Amino acid sequence: MNLRHIIKQNHLELLFRQGHFGLEKESQRVHRDGSVVTSEHPKAFGKRSFHPYIQTDFAESQLELITPPNKKLEDTFRWLQTIHEVVLRTLPEDEFIFPMSMPAGLPPEKDIKVAQLENPEDVAYREHLVESYGAYKQMVSGIHYNFQLDSALIDALFHTQNEYQNAVEFQNNLYLKMAKNFLRYQWILLYLLSATPTAEANYFKAGSPLKPNQYVRSLRSSQYGYVNAPEIVVSFDSIPKYVETLEHWVNSGKLVAEKEFYSNVRLRGAKKAREFLHTGIQYLEFRLFDLNPFEPYGMNLRDAKFVHYFILLMIWLEETADQTGVELGKARLMEVAFEDPRRETAYRAEGEQILNALIDMLKDIGADESAVEIAQEKLTQFARPEQTLCARLVAAIEQAGGYQKLGAELAQRHKAQAFERFYALTAFDNMELSTQALMFDAIQKGLEMEILDENDQFLRLQFGEHFEYVKNGNMTSRDSYISPLIMENKVVTKKVLEKAGFNVPKSLEFTGIEQAVASYGLFEGRPVVIKPKSTNYGLGITIFQQGVHDREDFAKAVEIAFREDKEIMVEDYLSGTEYRFFVLGDQTLAVLLRVPANVVGDGMHTVSELVAAKNNHPLRGDGSRTPLKKIALGDIEQLQLKEQGFTVDSIPAEGQIVQLRANSNISTGGDSIDMTDEMHPSYKALAVGITKAMGAAVCGVDLIIPDLKKPAEPNLQSWGVIEANFNPMMMMHIFPYQGKSRRLTQNVINMLFPELPS
Amino acid sequence: MNLRHIIKQNHLELLFRQGHFGLEKESQRVHRDGSVVTSEHPKAFGKRSFHPYIQTDFAESQLELITPPNKKLEDTFRWLQTIHEVVLRTLPEDEFIFPMSMPAGLPPEKDIKVAQLENPEDVAYREHLVESYGAYKQMVSGIHYNFQLDSALIDALFHTQNEYQNAVEFQNNLYLKMAKNFLRYQWILLYLLSATPTAEANYFKAGSPLKPNQYVRSLRSSQYGYVNAPEIVVSFDSIPKYVETLEHWVNSGKLVAEKEFYSNVRLRGAKKAREFLHTGIQYLEFRLFDLNPFEPYGMNLRDAKFVHYFILLMIWLEETADQTGVELGKARLMEVAFEDPRRETAYRAEGEQILNALIDMLKDIGADESAVEIAQEKLTQFARPEQTLCARLVAAIEQAGGYQKLGAELAQRHKAQAFERFYALTAFDNMELSTQALMFDAIQKGLEMEILDENDQFLRLQFGEHFEYVKNGNMTSRDSYISPLIMENKVVTKKVLEKAGFNVPKSLEFTGIEQAVASYGLFEGRPVVIKPKSTNYGLGITIFQQGVHDREDFAKAVEIAFREDKEIMVEDYLSGTEYRFFVLGDQTLAVLLRVPANVVGDGMHTVSELVAAKNNHPLRGDGSRTPLKKIALGDIEQLQLKEQGFTVDSIPAEGQIVQLRANSNISTGGDSIDMTDEMHPSYKALAVGITKAMGAAVCGVDLIIPDLKKPAEPNLQSWGVIEANFNPMMMMHIFPYQGKSRRLTQNVINMLFPELPS
Repeated sequence: MNLRHIIKQNHLELLFRQGHFGLEKESQRVHRDGSVVTSEHPKAFGKRSFHPYIQTDFAESQLELITPPNKKLEDTFRWLQTIHEVVLRTLPEDEFIFPMSMPAGLPPEKDIKVAQLENPEDVAYREHLVESYGAYKQMVSGIHYNFQLDSALIDALFHTQNEYQNAVEFQNNLYLKMAKNFLRYQWILLYLLSATPTAEANYFKAGSPLKPNQYVRSLRSSQYGYVNAPEIVVSFDSIPKYVETLEHWVNSGKLVAEKEFYSNVRLRGAKKAREFLHTGIQYLEFRLFDLNPFEPYGMNLRDAKFVHYFILLMIWLEETADQTGVELGKARLMEVAFEDPRRETAYRAEGEQILNALIDMLKDIGADESAVEIAQEKLTQFARPEQTLCARLVAAIEQAGGYQKLGAELAQRHKAQAFERFYALTAFDNMELSTQALMFDAIQKGLEMEILDENDQFLRLQFGEHFEYVKNGNMTSRDSYISPLIMENKVVTKKVLEKAGFNVPKSLEFTGIEQAVASYGLFEGRPVVIKPKSTNYGLGITIFQQGVHDREDFAKAVEIAFREDKEIMVEDYLSGTEYRFFVLGDQTLAVLLRVPANVVGDGMHTVSELVAAKNNHPLRGDGSRTPLKKIALGDIEQLQLKEQGFTVDSIPAEGQIVQLRANSNISTGGDSIDMTDEMHPSYKALAVGITKAMGAAVCGVDLIIPDLKKPAEPNLQSWGVIEANFNPMMMMHIFPYQGKSRRLTQNVINMLFPELPS
Repeated sequence: MNLRHIIKQNHLELLFRQGHFGLEKESQRVHRDGSVVTSEHPKAFGKRSFHPYIQTDFAESQLELITPPNKKLEDTFRWLQTIHEVVLRTLPEDEFIFPMSMPAGLPPEKDIKVAQLENPEDVAYREHLVESYGAYKQMVSGIHYNFQLDSALIDALFHTQNEYQNAVEFQNNLYLKMAKNFLRYQWILLYLLSATPTAEANYFKAGSPLKPNQYVRSLRSSQYGYVNAPEIVVSFDSIPKYVETLEHWVNSGKLVAEKEFYSNVRLRGAKKAREFLHTGIQYLEFRLFDLNPFEPYGMNLRDAKFVHYFILLMIWLEETADQTGVELGKARLMEVAFEDPRRETAYRAEGEQILNALIDMLKDIGADESAVEIAQEKLTQFARPEQTLCARLVAAIEQAGGYQKLGAELAQRHKAQAFERFYALTAFDNMELSTQALMFDAIQKGLEMEILDENDQFLRLQFGEHFEYVKNGNMTSRDSYISPLIMENKVVTKKVLEKAGFNVPKSLEFTGIEQAVASYGLFEGRPVVIKPKSTNYGLGITIFQQGVHDREDFAKAVEIAFREDKEIMVEDYLSGTEYRFFVLGDQTLAVLLRVPANVVGDGMHTVSELVAAKNNHPLRGDGSRTPLKKIALGDIEQLQLKEQGFTVDSIPAEGQIVQLRANSNISTGGDSIDMTDEMHPSYKALAVGITKAMGAAVCGVDLIIPDLKKPAEPNLQSWGVIEANFNPMMMMHIFPYQGKSRRLTQNVINMLFPELPS
């Protein structure tokens, strides 16, 4: 059976290039100096018993970060980056992620705590590993690459061949071919991607095997790494043989469990190897890869793509390595692992031959140009060993003045990088910030998350069997269909709130002077504002703050308003400050004051300079990719300045507040100030009541309050409700300009998953 | 205290003209011949113990229809009309509403059953009435007019006078003035609006007091009507005196309860008169009015407006009638009631004087021109008694050849009128038909209903303390916020349905031939359609109904599609018929087949003629005010005809089906055919499952099914889901072109109010 021909003849190239990709990346939590911590796995990551993305591997200090499988490698890397950002921003301030596979600054063996998992068997297994291999060897980290072929490809291939009658057997042998050829040629990936040239002397129980200044390609893949005893040979000839030999080592007690068999290819998709006979191998796990210390996440996308094509080549090749080939490959790996990374490899010819075959394959299967470029670049590195990752790493170690020192430097740099836009998830920055915040929290707490539609901010969250959909950060099943429809309709909202007994300002519209004046009786004695329906810069507005007591005054105000528009409004006037109450369920979680764009003078700088300085704030930007918006200096702002007797070049006195906008919107450069703790609880209770009247679970209530310290009274002089908003903004509360951050997205998660352990 | 001056000086004219209006209209259910029925109150109206709109008055046959109070009289009349339409369409086919106050065709007294209310006291009270007055007198019907002054007016008046210190006392005396002057001048309204000139001889226990061919103005308001014994005099001097005298008659046993005091003005707003001392009169009930038999609903809007202004005049007048005046007014009423309606009244001068005062008032308070016109028209009727309602009625009786005969004729006409647009509520026809249907059902079953926003189809329904909002007929709190958001997003919908295991057709879009052809493997062997993304008249579409088995065929189809558009789609092809499943909760309530606009030939008429004939169907109209739409004969239809070799002038053979549209939308003249009973239950269960996967309570599921009789299988050959729709249309199920009507609005009500007795 020549797979290559079948693929070409049946035009299956597209399917052949598809698949599912997942990454699992181990690394040590370390101190600022790169030495491994002895602290517990952070509690902020929820429970390890269910966390799908953030786990501990062998040791309590050893993070294992796991991406979900994705159809596109690009998406897998977005996840890898995102999980890293979540972890790095959650770690204590003085903890970092070590970027290298070989740990440095190891504590005494006795201080290394195995991962404190809930299942006692998991802990016992780790303690067995300590006994068999020593704790230090288990502290070595790497990155595992999971790959699954497209099931439609396997189907199509199966149906175009006659050799196999049984689909499971066919599938098993397809994956076995991939596995065997990989084991045969894995040294090539080691040559190109390895990055463990050295380790600290204390890593070696019997003293370092490296001479002073000796570097190798991969200590991790050498006999000093994470390998079984040499006698543990498992047959890859066929699945029955694989099962038989593997079970033999377990039954004989040489391995404590099947998973103690450390092959650089692991067959996946079943708990026990024997199941493969019936259910088939579902995907392969490639475990060869050292962490790339220069990459903040241990590997880069280009290398991952190269690995993908290399794996495909293992199927594309005409021959299939037999057990001898597999053992040859493993031996060659050991050999190459101990070569000097700055020198040519002994097997350069084979390496170049295989990479040329890869390039041919890429052309045959219609891979894009960039794939060929990547392969050609790797091919070059056989002639120029100094360009390999490991050689470059050696140079960097020497330049930094030491292994741990370089590691510490890179760890700090990577952490700083993860904080650059601390309010966003860099890889998903095309989405809304509030959805990014929710995703951050979901990943942190260990909810399974699927992005159903990025443009539509549509997520699916799952915990156990329970799943929920979320759109735009807080649109969920917890709200009823009718609530937003009520809030969308101002007339209905007013009627509902009035009926429920809340202080709703009365408002009437008029198209004629007489008719408006005749309404005097409805407003007499009440504070009232009379204004043209469309108002420009406050022209035509009259406010009777102390109540209108004279009909002639009222008539005059009506007349003034009609000078500006054909329609006017007479409204109850609410004097006071507008606050936004964010209500979720039975609680007002946040209260925010929005202040119109402004700067405060210092007697030295011009308005322009003050604005520029204020715009430097890390939260300010374009307002869609940042929580706050930069203050503009456009026409409206300049007019606003003019009204106060300023120009952009004026130098306001120290402490003088200069308004740049009349409106308080955050989107026009306003300041957001958290007032949750300052607000009298009676108003918070009112906001909850208003939310309930709307039938809503999540609601943004805008109240006008003259004195936030005085308890609320049942009249418009004490407070009035302006609006109730569905899908209220969260970012302004999460990242306010001043005051305490309110992490509302966590509350949304707790609302959706009350069963989630806190 | 001169109220007139206070109103003028304080410009309270607008407030003075405002108020709340409600009507209560009694009438007898009768047979086709106008004789009173002895059947039970229809069960379809729900329970009388809570029905706010449809009650029984004295007798089981006597309907009492009650409008809610409204700020505008126009709205009160919309309600009156609507309640009538609900009642008339609900009554058995052979029952009608008698249009006259005096019943005709009365059964023997013993066969008259008092209203079978749940409360035994209510039944006992009616039986007492039978004993005291005889059953026949209690069968007389009328219309009661409730009026409440604007509370802001009362406040304003109170605050501008010094006579009263106590607001309740002020309010009581204001209403008392209105009541007393009304009693003094009520004869004027009787003269103008009465309509009980005669009655059948057997109505009178002691023989008819009328001579042959004698007609009077109002038997109902005469001593032969529904009046207390002459000695029952209650003082209107003040509320304390009113309470004292009324309680005296009850305590002395002359009245069985306060409500047995039949004044033409009733003070309202408390269960017992004594409460008025503390809580004040809330509104007045004017009980003088005979049914206007020429009006389908017993009164017309012009007369109701006239009554409103007449009542206002009772406050506007400078003098207030004292008890002597009240008694004089009552005596005058009796006198005028027995005058010949075709003759001038003895009190013409007083009548004209009061109406002139009314006209002056209307001008003073700025009432609109039409109000003055109405008053002037009434004024004229003092000089021309033949124009009074009663005189016109007498003429009509004589022309019809009898009282009962005229009543029967009018009853039939009014019922037919209520069926003219049986699928709509005439007075609310600006709203969506589905909302009208829901309103119909809510009123029928006795839910309290408030229209929060007519343009937005926003209703509030209430039963006891439980209320619900409904928008657009079926958008309610029963659906979650997230469900419509899922359904709105086709990508998310597909993902959710796929994950839940439903048959979702696969669909891919391509912008290049090569890439599209490379997808062959994904579709091989499956029925598939390849089409340009924007398709005109089917150009560029290839369908592989038996599955695509050849890559070259596939490539060719891709190429053909790309000739028509820059983007193409490759989709699983579903062969079969599309059905709409209307799901509510756990049940598929309706299944509909939509057939493209068509006519069936008869070998005689042209296509034009056939279309015109089909368009005559009562359900067809413009499609927004009717359940179905008329078939157009525009460009698209003519093109469709041309494709079949027809023109509009062709005469298709008998039985030949002529397509006028390719699409099956009802909005382009399609036929709706109910298939609920024909559809195999397995598909109905699937539609429920799809609705559950969407998290929806109400959902319109579109399935393609090749054979609706065969049970569903889990593959796309058996069925496929096309779409899930929130807020699905209901009218096409309620009023299908063919097949059984499914009254879905009733199911919506039952879903919202499961506690509602059925």
